[in-house]
Amino acid sequence: MPRYKIIIEYDGKKFSGWQSQKGLKTIQEAIENSLFKFSSKKISIYGAGRTDTGVHAIGQVAHFDLNLSSLEDKNKKLGKLTMGINYYLSREFKNQISILSTTKVPKSFHARFSAKYRKYQYTILNKRVPSPLYRNSAWRIPLPLDIKLMRKASKLLIGKHNFSAFRSSECQSKSPIKTIDEIKIKQNEELIQITVQAKSFLMNQVRIITGTLVEIGLKRKSDKDILLALKEFDKKHTGPTAPPHGLILEEITY
Amino acid sequence: MPRYKIIIEYDGKKFSGWQSQKGLKTIQEAIENSLFKFSSKKISIYGAGRTDTGVHAIGQVAHFDLNLSSLEDKNKKLGKLTMGINYYLSREFKNQISILSTTKVPKSFHARFSAKYRKYQYTILNKRVPSPLYRNSAWRIPLPLDIKLMRKASKLLIGKHNFSAFRSSECQSKSPIKTIDEIKIKQNEELIQITVQAKSFLMNQVRIITGTLVEIGLKRKSDKDILLALKEFDKKHTGPTAPPHGLILEEITY
Repeated sequence: MPRYKIIIEYDGKKFSGWQSQKGLKTIQEAIENSLFKFSSKKISIYGAGRTDTGVHAIGQVAHFDLNLSSLEDKNKKLGKLTMGINYYLSREFKNQISILSTTKVPKSFHARFSAKYRKYQYTILNKRVPSPLYRNSAWRIPLPLDIKLMRKASKLLIGKHNFSAFRSSECQSKSPIKTIDEIKIKQNEELIQITVQAKSFLMNQVRIITGTLVEIGLKRKSDKDILLALKEFDKKHTGPTAPPHGLILEEITY
Repeated sequence: MPRYKIIIEYDGKKFSGWQSQKGLKTIQEAIENSLFKFSSKKISIYGAGRTDTGVHAIGQVAHFDLNLSSLEDKNKKLGKLTMGINYYLSREFKNQISILSTTKVPKSFHARFSAKYRKYQYTILNKRVPSPLYRNSAWRIPLPLDIKLMRKASKLLIGKHNFSAFRSSECQSKSPIKTIDEIKIKQNEELIQITVQAKSFLMNQVRIITGTLVEIGLKRKSDKDILLALKEFDKKHTGPTAPPHGLILEEITY
């Protein structure tokens, strides 16, 4: 059966994350339901990464197998797939989820296991007063952040490390060893965007990295704490888990 | 009594515009209520512009008169005003409205009548598929827009004209003659931002200008229609009123 890759954007605010869970509204389930309405077939989709409750995506990837020739005549063309799934997604979920593209891929492609890099972006608003227009997409830090200290500290996280102090207690990864390729911190007036790239991540890793860098920007922690966290694996050296609404799964490279 | 100027940001989605109206939830009323809770005084505020239902602002301005010395001791300082009003705004309206700053101004200052320029920004997303993350802040146009045609046509609107074809039928301005100082159209991948500056505007003027430029970008209308609209004052030459959620009152200059 042919395999298809979809790229997905979503506003995660009202969903319990990507992964299907009994009794909860998840992105995966929403797409599978829409795919069922479009194709009249029960089709499982496989996502590249399990984003948590409230986390957004502009570049989530998933794959599924489907025989287009088994569909109704009007839906048989590849071009109908994106629009067809989106029709049901927008009807049921008011445009909170959208398929950006659908492409045919070789049977060897796996959204999760074929991924070479994942890129997440975390947005901070460094502003004394609340911002109505950013309230759902940025973590507001009211006290001034020293961005130079944050950039300097972020360099210490690059490379292969034991990130035990930077994972959720619920993280199910077998190994805490991960390799971070790149952390970029851009500032545009009050907006600060932290982009982190790695082959794969631990649960909450980007959010705990962000929370730790914010503590450093506020001068409550320093480079020393990052070095200790990477050496002693103790969470007392890391900062809080940044809230989910500032995080976007930006891109997955294959 | 001393006069204060406040700069206000809001997400207009769930409000019936700026201006107080019986039985409707408006921005003005929300701020007046919060000001009452803070000061225990009934204070009227005067806004610079009446944004419509669903329109946002990052630079709305209003003024009001208040004797700080008449307040409780803990609230007597100017610095407490912004935070004090925001406390009640965020409690009651979940950060949908925020006072960005409060400054003391001369008694001759009037938010509406002292304004020299008003600047609005309209955001269009030129994308074939829906975008969950822009669904509340941009008007999505699925067919490709010719931005060069839009820029060329926008030049015809600059200057002093009779904008009767570019106003709502409910507009109450005495004169339809307005002077547009500047229209800028910026493109960043799929995002198109139209910024319009004038001393003052007619009701829906920026949204009808946007709707007309979009028709031109889609090649359904041309420069000729703009010229006819400005000469014959007939709405058959203008485009639709662009939806409110793409519009932001950006800045008011005094």
